[in-house]
Amino acid sequence: MPRKTIIKKVTPDLVVVGSVALDILHTPRVTTRKLPGGSAIHFANAASLFCSAGIVGVVGEDYPHERIHFLHERGVDFSGLETGAGKTFLWEGRYSEDFNSRETIRTELGVFAEFNPKIPAHFRRPRVLFLAAISPALQLSVLNQVEEVRLVALDTFKLWIDTRRDALLDVIRRVDLFFLNDEEVRWLTGERSVLKGAQMIRDMGPQWVVVKRGEHGSFLLSEKGLFLVPPYPVEEVVDPTGAGDAFAGGVLGYLAAQSRFYDSTFRRALCWGSVVGSFYVEGFGPDGLRNTTKTALGARFREYQKMIQVS
Amino acid sequence: MPRKTIIKKVTPDLVVVGSVALDILHTPRVTTRKLPGGSAIHFANAASLFCSAGIVGVVGEDYPHERIHFLHERGVDFSGLETGAGKTFLWEGRYSEDFNSRETIRTELGVFAEFNPKIPAHFRRPRVLFLAAISPALQLSVLNQVEEVRLVALDTFKLWIDTRRDALLDVIRRVDLFFLNDEEVRWLTGERSVLKGAQMIRDMGPQWVVVKRGEHGSFLLSEKGLFLVPPYPVEEVVDPTGAGDAFAGGVLGYLAAQSRFYDSTFRRALCWGSVVGSFYVEGFGPDGLRNTTKTALGARFREYQKMIQVS
Repeated sequence: MPRKTIIKKVTPDLVVVGSVALDILHTPRVTTRKLPGGSAIHFANAASLFCSAGIVGVVGEDYPHERIHFLHERGVDFSGLETGAGKTFLWEGRYSEDFNSRETIRTELGVFAEFNPKIPAHFRRPRVLFLAAISPALQLSVLNQVEEVRLVALDTFKLWIDTRRDALLDVIRRVDLFFLNDEEVRWLTGERSVLKGAQMIRDMGPQWVVVKRGEHGSFLLSEKGLFLVPPYPVEEVVDPTGAGDAFAGGVLGYLAAQSRFYDSTFRRALCWGSVVGSFYVEGFGPDGLRNTTKTALGARFREYQKMIQVS
Repeated sequence: MPRKTIIKKVTPDLVVVGSVALDILHTPRVTTRKLPGGSAIHFANAASLFCSAGIVGVVGEDYPHERIHFLHERGVDFSGLETGAGKTFLWEGRYSEDFNSRETIRTELGVFAEFNPKIPAHFRRPRVLFLAAISPALQLSVLNQVEEVRLVALDTFKLWIDTRRDALLDVIRRVDLFFLNDEEVRWLTGERSVLKGAQMIRDMGPQWVVVKRGEHGSFLLSEKGLFLVPPYPVEEVVDPTGAGDAFAGGVLGYLAAQSRFYDSTFRRALCWGSVVGSFYVEGFGPDGLRNTTKTALGARFREYQKMIQVS
């Protein structure tokens, strides 16, 4: 079937480079078995509902590929997923009663410790590139391999702000959109006001700064000012794991499917991110979006639009 | 000057019945002297920027009337404010570092312990009546004194849900709009989901349920569904005292000034409430709105509208 090979060589609209992991989660009521996790998986799970997506990452020989079969079915291109000699990145964590905090019980990096992203030739001209929260040195390596891209988005976490600040600042200068949470904004800028901090980050390079505030929603800071995004009211949180990555996947998946980027395009993108994030917390690991249809997503989006529209 | 007397006899658009107090506040940085406090004062402070307002309450002989001179200047009608024999209600409290919690250091009810609201004759046909969080028995007495009113709004707190549940349910049946916070919704309904709880409360009587979530914004539940209101991003919180009452004052003050009530009227009212609340936390006690002009309020409202508008 030569046709299959040809399909695989089509450049995806969106490429994500990040972790592919297995997660064991302890929520107030349930302890899970090993679930597909990692930012690249959660991100692609959401993004593939909007556009074609490709993953660059590494797994070990133990990785249960059948467990992400649903992503293959959604057309996610895994040709950038290497298999290293060793075990898949394993994370185990426990959430507090109200899901507002979590502690890490175990982190076994496995093959992820030696991750050195190699971007397949047909991944080098995507419309949108998402650098998930891997080390800034690897993010720079990815940026240097990509030939042409319309929008580059970045995520990071506190560890890199602490230990790889200079390399991270180099990356920040080269990206268009930056996702952070409140704590990361404060940590990066030293500014107590998250809003002022976000303004300082815009001055570092990214035209669009998106601050993720979990159950309190998010905001976008752009040239046109602030856009405040209230959270979609979820009846019951089952598991927040991956919701931030799924939010980013919704935002960037929607953007990758648009022909032009106006400020209103970004505002709509954040609304899609919120809706995607709301589905995500309703299931364990990637389950919240596993069986979600575009129809269900669209219905909630329209419901959400009515909830935030003044008149 | 007989003209003055005539002006005083005009029915205010909005009447509030509630506490008039003196507050001593300990914030992370400052301890204040006795400041004008109490829900009726904070509420009228906000509402009088939108419409004519009248207060029904009680103070002691020690009350420093000159400290609320600015409310007289805004035309607030104090003919429902009695002076009892004894001291004014005094509250002293301390906020936590992040302002997310506070503890009561001292409560001296003084003349407020014997408060028995008497509605002046010219207050009995207001457009809007606000029953601040006084005891349900007093709220019922007020409802029985009022002759005609277009919209009755209610506030309460946990103490009354615990100790005066039946009387409170009687009041709830007779009001149009009910302001609560998350905890009060859960306490009143026994429902863990605030959204489901708010739906249950609508079934108890009020057509409009407004859930105040402090720094996380608010939402309105009506026949037309949910309206989510993100908080205006305040650069620095100075003192949150009274912000919830001021929010209600903004919401109801705006409503009292409108000729018709559509769902969009209520939505806009909540936006005004948010903007008013954002000014309120920027100063101690009532200071956040003491010198705020309608122009400054309007400018922030337009700024806020841009921040929440998708396209």
